[in-house]
Formats: sequence, structure tokens, C-alpha cells
Amino acid sequence: MAEASGACFVAIGGSLRPNSLTYQALEVVRREFERLRLLLHILDLRQMKLPFADGSESYPDYPDVEVLRATMKRADGIILASPEYHGGISGSLKNALDLLSFEHLEGKVFGLISVLGGESNSNTLNQMRLIVRWVHGWAIPEQIAIGRAWSAFDEQGNLKDENLRQRLQRFVQSLVTNTSKLRGSRLPAP
Amino acid sequence: MAEASGACFVAIGGSLRPNSLTYQALEVVRREFERLRLLLHILDLRQMKLPFADGSESYPDYPDVEVLRATMKRADGIILASPEYHGGISGSLKNALDLLSFEHLEGKVFGLISVLGGESNSNTLNQMRLIVRWVHGWAIPEQIAIGRAWSAFDEQGNLKDENLRQRLQRFVQSLVTNTSKLRGSRLPAP
Amino acid sequence: MAEASGACFVAIGGSLRPNSLTYQALEVVRREFERLRLLLHILDLRQMKLPFADGSESYPDYPDVEVLRATMKRADGIILASPEYHGGISGSLKNALDLLSFEHLEGKVFGLISVLGGESNSNTLNQMRLIVRWVHGWAIPEQIAIGRAWSAFDEQGNLKDENLRQRLQRFVQSLVTNTSKLRGSRLPAP
Amino acid sequence: MAEASGACFVAIGGSLRPNSLTYQALEVVRREFERLRLLLHILDLRQMKLPFADGSESYPDYPDVEVLRATMKRADGIILASPEYHGGISGSLKNALDLLSFEHLEGKVFGLISVLGGESNSNTLNQMRLIVRWVHGWAIPEQIAIGRAWSAFDEQGNLKDENLRQRLQRFVQSLVTNTSKLRGSRLPAP
Repeated sequence: MAEASGACFVAIGGSLRPNSLTYQALEVVRREFERLRLLLHILDLRQMKLPFADGSESYPDYPDVEVLRATMKRADGIILASPEYHGGISGSLKNALDLLSFEHLEGKVFGLISVLGGESNSNTLNQMRLIVRWVHGWAIPEQIAIGRAWSAFDEQGNLKDENLRQRLQRFVQSLVTNTSKLRGSRLPAP
Repeated sequence: MAEASGACFVAIGGSLRPNSLTYQALEVVRREFERLRLLLHILDLRQMKLPFADGSESYPDYPDVEVLRATMKRADGIILASPEYHGGISGSLKNALDLLSFEHLEGKVFGLISVLGGESNSNTLNQMRLIVRWVHGWAIPEQIAIGRAWSAFDEQGNLKDENLRQRLQRFVQSLVTNTSKLRGSRLPAP
Repeated sequence: MAEASGACFVAIGGSLRPNSLTYQALEVVRREFERLRLLLHILDLRQMKLPFADGSESYPDYPDVEVLRATMKRADGIILASPEYHGGISGSLKNALDLLSFEHLEGKVFGLISVLGGESNSNTLNQMRLIVRWVHGWAIPEQIAIGRAWSAFDEQGNLKDENLRQRLQRFVQSLVTNTSKLRGSRLPAP
Repeated sequence: MAEASGACFVAIGGSLRPNSLTYQALEVVRREFERLRLLLHILDLRQMKLPFADGSESYPDYPDVEVLRATMKRADGIILASPEYHGGISGSLKNALDLLSFEHLEGKVFGLISVLGGESNSNTLNQMRLIVRWVHGWAIPEQIAIGRAWSAFDEQGNLKDENLRQRLQRFVQSLVTNTSKLRGSRLPAP
């Protein structure tokens, strides 16, 4: 994994629930990064105070906007994890993206995760893919939908389903490998 | 228009900008309703104080949540107007929808408007259409994308483009007629 | 159901396989129409000889083009059932639609069915919904995805899953009721 | 461009019209490849005899199926160009894709072009992007929509619009560069 050693990975989740399954999923992903001896920095929207985007350049009353922007700007690979609300990305995650612009997102490599109460589907993943395209980012082909998320994790917070667990491993591996390929020349030498 | 006289029409816009072009567009729509001797009630997100949806049943600190819910529950026809941010519905509008549930939205008839800085496209309209489907609403086939919105209105706030103006008239007419058709039996007798 | 007695319902499936599960699904739908004492006319692409659309007005060597066009023109309610190939509507069904134009499809009420080998998702349903919108048709909110279709039917050709069976009943009921509502004035008096 | 010298680029268009604007667009793209001293092999559906996909493994009566499959299998970068028919990819192009499977498409890098009679929109591009994802391919962020295509080309077959011409150059450049990045290790040494 030396070739990826210089890359910076950030994740953000679109749920504000105290016991968010979306952030549980990101925790699983973080451990997978750890297994590869890589850091995944998780931006926890529940602990940030962000305003609704209103077209302003800056939001002096909300210093977390600058934290969000600076963190995303540094990122090479970004994981977007959203609960599916009404067949789409959560408003809180979309609003966080609305606070960002091309300079923070363009050319970055994205991995997409959707967390659903009911059966898995592709609505939110598809929406996020098209949003990523719009900001001129890359979304890796591998993507994760966690259906019936309320029963998807065991007591240690691991995914129960072996098949899904393997898909998540390949998802992380692909994000790491392809961030290196697509952004190799921008990464610091190992 | 007697057949529609009992129907209740509500619009909501997804921009928080002081000089929002999205709300300018809704004002044009409202005048079109007026021409048909019908009321369009516009919920102005800029004047409401809404929280980010966090899965709570109720938000006691935010009485506007109940205003939003009660207004939408009464509605038969609903217009969603969103600026396109990063190729999708604005986070603030999606968040407002996230605060609502089936009881407020199911079976309602929706008209969709997208307001864009650049050339018109269908990304946001498509997203909204699929969200409306997800809450078991009806989106009318007619839809409006206002491209290069910063130059779309004249000094009186009317649409400059005659073709677009006519399409907006047909859009309103279709929403009114088809709300009556689809929800006729639920409407009070004229 | 008297109010719908004048409406004409047509279904078309997008599979050319001899033992097509898509047409099995349409057969289930047809029996559901029958239970409501209504006819569903199924256009079987496997028995029609259609050309690839090449922009011609007419296709004299392919009389089935006129059969397709005349049947669709008469229809008030149309069911599109597609296998999901590569995450989308089958080419053969899309080609059949490409042979049609606004005069055959505009204003019609559509019900959408997707038949999948793997787990159900919404890709093909979403695509068909946006295509229906494009031809100015109505797609009802209810829609059917049959996942793992190879194991979905029993020996009598009925859906094994009781929940899915009920959803299909509501799907047919909605198509019938809303075709009547949306096209009532165009239907012959009962 | 030495690093890309080993990569194989193929394009396919989804129009069967004799004076196809889609193939005119691909001709412009081919010249752009030429300018970079690279070959673009164009598969012309108008000169191939393909069956409708019916789930068969092979189509002995249609040797062009093998030509299509072998050509795509060799490709590293693939351009899909579709006219927009009824708000979506043409049936003939989708059918050609239906004749292919993972072994021909997985991991390839795709560039997407949509050719429209009316104003440009993103429906067909979005559909193709999601199809490419489904076959585990990469679609580059840059994409081309040619609106009002009937007036887009001059007598030499070049794009009239300077802005669009530059976007097409960047589109080709991105496809070449990123095919090299994403598939570098699979390419023959220069």
C-alpha cells in the first residue's frame, strides 16, 4: 500500500441521528482502512454546526464551514455515506456538499454508500454518482447499499452478512488503489 | 375552473438567497394561479426556521416544522422549485422534505421547477420526480427548467422568454386540471 | 369497475427469451385484470418482427410496426415490463418505444415493471419513468420490481411472495382507477 | 502521449440514420484522436448486422456479434455516443450493449456523448453513466451533449461552437490520460 501512503482519505455521513447506522457503517469502513494501515478521517455532521447554504461566500458565525472546506480540500479520496430519505440523499449531507465548491471536490475520487431502512435499492447511490460527476469528481464503480440496516450489524458493530463484508473490503481496496492511480502525480512521494 | 375550486395549492422553494431567483419564479407561478382566480400559498424557506432532520418525531424548539407539516398535509397540489446546486436538489429543500412523511405527501399532485445558473438540464427535475414517486405522489409530465436564470426575468419580474412563459402557463394549467382529476373525490364540493 | 369499462389496456415486455420471466410476470398481471373483468392486451415482442429504428417514418417491410403503433395509439393504459439488462431497460423494449412517437404515447397512463435476475433495485424503473415523462405520459406511483425472478414464480406461474402479490394487485388497481381518472373524458361512455 | 501508446480506443454510435449526426460527432472525435497521433476505431452500427439480444450465449447467424465482442474486449477506452430518443439511450445502442457482458466491458474507461435534436440535457448521459457503472466500468467526469445537433456542424463536419469544440478536446484528452492511469498496468510497454 506504499503507493497510497501519501493520499488523504475523508468520509462524511448524512445522518444526524444519535445512533446513526450510517456512522456505524463508516466505522466499519474506518476499521477496514486501519487494516490496510491507512487513516480514514471521519467528519461527523452530528458534532459540527453547519448553516443551511444560502449562497454566501463565507459563514463567519459558523467556523465549522471552514473546517469542512479545509478538510475536503486536503482530501484525495472521499467517502459519502447517506441514509436514504424519501428515495434520495439526506438534506443534511446535500447541504454540506452545497457549502463546498469545485475547489474542494473537483478531481477527487469518491466512494458511495447508501444506508436504508427497507430493502436496498440504488436511488441514493445513483443521485450521489451524478452529483459527484457534476463537481467533476470520480465515483468508483464499486458501491455499497446496506439494506434493512437496523439488523445489518452485530453487537461488535461488524456487518453480519459475509457477502456484504467482502464487498465492503473490495470497495475500500478499490478506493485506495484507484485514488492512487488517478491522483498519483499529486500525491507526495512515499 | 370551478371543478378545482376546492383544491389547495402550495409551493415551496429551495433557495435561501435574499434575492432568490427560485422565489422569483414562484412569484411568476403565483400570478399565473391568480389569473385563474386560484390561490397559491408559497412557503418561504427564507422566513421559516427549520432544523436539520435528525429522525425525531417532533421538534418542539422549531414550531415552523408544524407549520410546514400542517400546510403540506392540507395541500392537494404541491409545487417544488429548487435551484440546481451541484447537479441536484438543494440541501435545504431536501431537508424540508425529510421533515415530512407519507401522511403529508402521499397521493398529492406535484409540479416541478428547476432554476439554474448555467444552461438548463434535467438533473434536478429527474431527482425530484423520483423523490415524489418515492413518497407515492404524482409528478405531472409538464416541468419547467429555467436556465441562465440570472437573465431570465425582466424588471417587472416576468419571464422574458415567450416560449418559456407559455410552457409555464401550460404547466400551471396541467397542475390545476390534473389535481382535480386525481383528487377530485377528496375535494370539497364547489 | 364500470367507470373503466371503456378504457383500453395494453402491455409490452422487453424480453425475447423463449421462457421469458418478463412475460410470465405479464401473464400474472393479465390474470389480475381478468379478475377485475378487464382485458389486458399483451404485445409479445417474441412474436413480432420489428426493425431497429432508423428514423424512418414508416417501415414497409415490417408490417408489425403498424400493429405496434395502432395498438399503442388505441391504448389508454400501458404496462411496460422490462428485464434489467446491464442496469437498464432492454434494448429491444427501448427500440420498440423508439418506433413510436408522441401521437401513440402522449397522455397515456403507464404502469412499470422491472424483472431482475439479482436483487431488486430501481435502475430500470427509474429509467422507464423518465422516458414516460419525456413522451408526456403519466407513470403511476406504484411500481413493481421482481428480484431473483428465476425463483419468483410457482409451478402455476403465480408469484410465490404474498407481499409482492398484494403489491401487484394494488399496482393493477391503481393503473385501472387512475387511467379512468386521468383519461375519463376521452373514454367512451359505459 | 507515449504512456497511452499501448491503449486501444473504440467508439460506437447508437444511430442507424444514413446521415447520422451521432456518427458525425464520432468523426470529429476521431480527428481529435488523430491530432494526438492516436487511433480511434469506430464501430459503425449501420454497417453491422446485429440481432436483438435474446439471452443466447452465441448468435451463429450473426458473425458481427463476435466482431463486436472481440473489438470491445480488446478496448481499453470506449466512447459511447447515443442520439437521445424519448429521453434516453437509443434502443439499438442499448441492444448492442446487451449483447456484451462483463468480460467485454468491466474495468474499461468510458467517455459519453449525447446527440440531441432539441436543447441539450443530461438524460441520456446520466443513463449511460449508470449503465457503465453497472458493468463495473469507469465513466470519465467530462461528457459531451450536442444540442440542436442538426445545426451544430459546419460544412467540413467540424463543430461550429468554439466552446463545445474546446470541451470536446478536453473530453478526448481526459479519456486518453485517464485510460492510461486506470489501466496502465494492463497496457503493453511503450
